[in-house]
Amino acid sequence: MKDQTTRAAIGIDLGGTAIKAGLVCRDGAVPARQGIATEAGGGVDHVLGRIAGLIGAMRRHAADLGVELEAVGVGMPGTLSHRAGVVFAPPNLPGWRNVPVVERLRAATGMNVVMENDANCAALGEFVCGAGRGVRNLVLLTLGTGIGGGIILDGRLWRGSNENAGEIGHQIVQLDGRPCNCGQRGCLEAYASASQTAARAVEAIRSGQASVLRALVDGGRPLTSEDVVQASQAGDELARRVWEETCRYLAVSCLNIQHGWAPDCIVLAGGMSGAGELLRRPILEAMDKLASKLLGPLPDVRLARLGNDAGFIGAALGVLLEPG
Amino acid sequence: MKDQTTRAAIGIDLGGTAIKAGLVCRDGAVPARQGIATEAGGGVDHVLGRIAGLIGAMRRHAADLGVELEAVGVGMPGTLSHRAGVVFAPPNLPGWRNVPVVERLRAATGMNVVMENDANCAALGEFVCGAGRGVRNLVLLTLGTGIGGGIILDGRLWRGSNENAGEIGHQIVQLDGRPCNCGQRGCLEAYASASQTAARAVEAIRSGQASVLRALVDGGRPLTSEDVVQASQAGDELARRVWEETCRYLAVSCLNIQHGWAPDCIVLAGGMSGAGELLRRPILEAMDKLASKLLGPLPDVRLARLGNDAGFIGAALGVLLEPG
Repeated sequence: MKDQTTRAAIGIDLGGTAIKAGLVCRDGAVPARQGIATEAGGGVDHVLGRIAGLIGAMRRHAADLGVELEAVGVGMPGTLSHRAGVVFAPPNLPGWRNVPVVERLRAATGMNVVMENDANCAALGEFVCGAGRGVRNLVLLTLGTGIGGGIILDGRLWRGSNENAGEIGHQIVQLDGRPCNCGQRGCLEAYASASQTAARAVEAIRSGQASVLRALVDGGRPLTSEDVVQASQAGDELARRVWEETCRYLAVSCLNIQHGWAPDCIVLAGGMSGAGELLRRPILEAMDKLASKLLGPLPDVRLARLGNDAGFIGAALGVLLEPG
Repeated sequence: MKDQTTRAAIGIDLGGTAIKAGLVCRDGAVPARQGIATEAGGGVDHVLGRIAGLIGAMRRHAADLGVELEAVGVGMPGTLSHRAGVVFAPPNLPGWRNVPVVERLRAATGMNVVMENDANCAALGEFVCGAGRGVRNLVLLTLGTGIGGGIILDGRLWRGSNENAGEIGHQIVQLDGRPCNCGQRGCLEAYASASQTAARAVEAIRSGQASVLRALVDGGRPLTSEDVVQASQAGDELARRVWEETCRYLAVSCLNIQHGWAPDCIVLAGGMSGAGELLRRPILEAMDKLASKLLGPLPDVRLARLGNDAGFIGAALGVLLEPG
């Protein structure tokens, strides 16, 4: 039997604008990587062809490096079936409907292919070689356009009976609250995603409240959560309130995660986690105010460490940790 | 090796007014049972002595029946450490503080003793031989004075890193909502426990709203959730609104459980689940209105089947399923 560290998998992160690929070892090391444009407009066949090409390139890297390849892991957003290898309607790939990605890529490459939700990939990546290294149980939130969740229990991904576990962004934190894209009201995602943070700022500005961000909104430039964070740091009162509300809702969700799963740590990932301590610190402060002192210590909230590599690293690790 | 069904454990359900005990087989069969008053006023030593006496009686039953005894499982409410065998401050046993129940009962009986939270016991009991028989993953809510939770994942109790997982009653469903006994605001328990359901009815009556329940409240008789259900059935508008709100919050929690764990089923247990379909049906109706159709089917919500036996059956099964 070979040394485990020489075994590796190809990880693919399929996004709406870019496809990232890497050769990933069991310890999370990445001896080779490559990124190309998705060219999503070309349609399903075109994109799958581009992925197959990337897989071919990674196989050549593996051969050059003398690395033994196990399989290919593909991470992508949206509801999908890991078991069936089918993605239903990915939000970032218009026109994709019930695409049997795994079967298609197996046929195209002759390799064993496994598919996984992007938040699950991020959780696996952070668990093995990121913010959750060394723990047994973690819950990860991806804070981006939406809010996704990935759950590692006892060292394994928890998918639930229907493979839809971990939709923490759609846990309701305010009955009859703000409408969510999913159709529910009061979901965490309806308040605290990057896009809804920006949307709440735009709504407050449009309602007539003063803010340095008004010029951007009036100028037609789409507001981002980074704009809100920066304006808040610069002393803008509206931005400060909007950002504080985002962090309070995330604090509620972290407390709910603690009361539910009691993991070793909660990891904040996704684009909005780029705000770093400007995100983590106000969440900790809000938790301290909101939490019961009777129910044990506050959760250990950490920032993700793998950044944009989490997707392909986690996709590959999913294959390496749960072979077959 | 003996046939597994001849192996049994003694289950103890330690409550504030009664101690229930049973000889429980691996399949949940109960060949012998006995209940006595707790006599909590007698203090820790007195109560532990009564439990030791019950254990002795159960051992004699086991000997008479030719049943091989594994150990003793003790179920009780309140925060406790299963690992350390210590109960911290059980709400129904005033004066108990950090009592090493397991060590004391081991010394008194010479038997292996294991302690478990009552909601966890109920979850184990319903999982093995109640409403969750045949599933792999289940979340159970105990609806009583408070709201507890028990979680079975992949056939095993999930306790979390700090043994405090499953505090679903203290998941916040309404930021800045109603104060909870735990010190937080907006917890599920602050709305939808049996006692808070009654409390909300009393508050509405005291605020001047009309209700057939006013006579009870004015007469000084403590209102119960059963009173609210009955009045609601009899057409009382205030009671109907209060009960509907209880069921809506429970519906939110069921959706959040589904989005979080995606179990095979959710089991409603505890005193208030005695309302049966008068509880389950309005929860299903509320979920149907509140849920997103994009996030998969509604959770499978079931009523507990073991009733008052769940405590000692689950305590014993905990020992039999996770020996050592």
